[in-house]
Amino acid sequence: MDTQVNKQILTRLRRIEGQVGGIQKMVEEQRYCVDILNQISSVRAALDAVGVELLTSHIKTCVIGHGSGQDHSDASVQTDEDLLNEIKLVLNRFLK
Amino acid sequence: MDTQVNKQILTRLRRIEGQVGGIQKMVEEQRYCVDILNQISSVRAALDAVGVELLTSHIKTCVIGHGSGQDHSDASVQTDEDLLNEIKLVLNRFLK
Amino acid sequence: MDTQVNKQILTRLRRIEGQVGGIQKMVEEQRYCVDILNQISSVRAALDAVGVELLTSHIKTCVIGHGSGQDHSDASVQTDEDLLNEIKLVLNRFLK
Amino acid sequence: MDTQVNKQILTRLRRIEGQVGGIQKMVEEQRYCVDILNQISSVRAALDAVGVELLTSHIKTCVIGHGSGQDHSDASVQTDEDLLNEIKLVLNRFLK
Repeated sequence: MDTQVNKQILTRLRRIEGQVGGIQKMVEEQRYCVDILNQISSVRAALDAVGVELLTSHIKTCVIGHGSGQDHSDASVQTDEDLLNEIKLVLNRFLK
Repeated sequence: MDTQVNKQILTRLRRIEGQVGGIQKMVEEQRYCVDILNQISSVRAALDAVGVELLTSHIKTCVIGHGSGQDHSDASVQTDEDLLNEIKLVLNRFLK
Repeated sequence: MDTQVNKQILTRLRRIEGQVGGIQKMVEEQRYCVDILNQISSVRAALDAVGVELLTSHIKTCVIGHGSGQDHSDASVQTDEDLLNEIKLVLNRFLK
Repeated sequence: MDTQVNKQILTRLRRIEGQVGGIQKMVEEQRYCVDILNQISSVRAALDAVGVELLTSHIKTCVIGHGSGQDHSDASVQTDEDLLNEIKLVLNRFLK
């Protein structure tokens, strides 16, 4: 993962952590359920966006990077398959 | 929301906050993307579970509680409709 | 479920069925993956919308209707709990 | 998309089309909402699985295939970026 993506993702995760703290406060203050639920939807969307960022960064650096131009042995073709199966698993967990 | 549900939800939210902190650490330590993504899926599932808990608690206390047995005027029938529309909006945001 | 909601849901389901047929055609014609994926997202959103409609209709007729005003025995209080647990299960399956 | 994946995806889509038809019948027969909702969840999961299959197939043939070993000009690096942005958009629509 390149440094800039890394920083950006950390910033987002810190914000998400703060939002989760905010939701706790809302629960403690017995705020209206529907408002709390909307905040939860927001955090969920933010988490999904981080997931998509990470996944595309992964495809960029590990999957594309992996297949580019060096002289591969059969072993590495196998590994492309492995990387794709791994992505499939990740996506299935996400869309579960 | 009754006190026990409230406590349980706070406990879960604190755990989620901790998990988000853990994901930040993973990003800082440049851990393997796929492991980070799996952690994100986990937090997302935990958040969804909190959402479902809150929503059913809302239906129990506000929606069922609301409609039970007193002599209603038309105004309150209207409010049932409002509560349902609100739930529809919440669900649509969740499933967005 | 009241008749109007019923009709509306049937219309939507027929449209969804047609869209799934359309996606098959796209696959047969070897259309660009990304276009096919966008169609799948569309159908998924349409299905979710039907789900939300059905669920709110269920809450309206079974859950609110159920709790309203007759002289309940303890057994029926139990049944409110059952209905809520059922909704919880449904939501968890949906958000899985 | 290779022929085998293609066939497999068509088979799944036909099954999904049949399931949507089955849900219509359930609605017409006024079956219990919760049973209908569970069927909708099932179809949704099946659609997601098709989406994941298509997306990994796309990554395999278009993204990895694209970047492999030929002497690229800057223009093609640009195109890798385009492919990744496209995947990001697709994923965001899916997780919307």
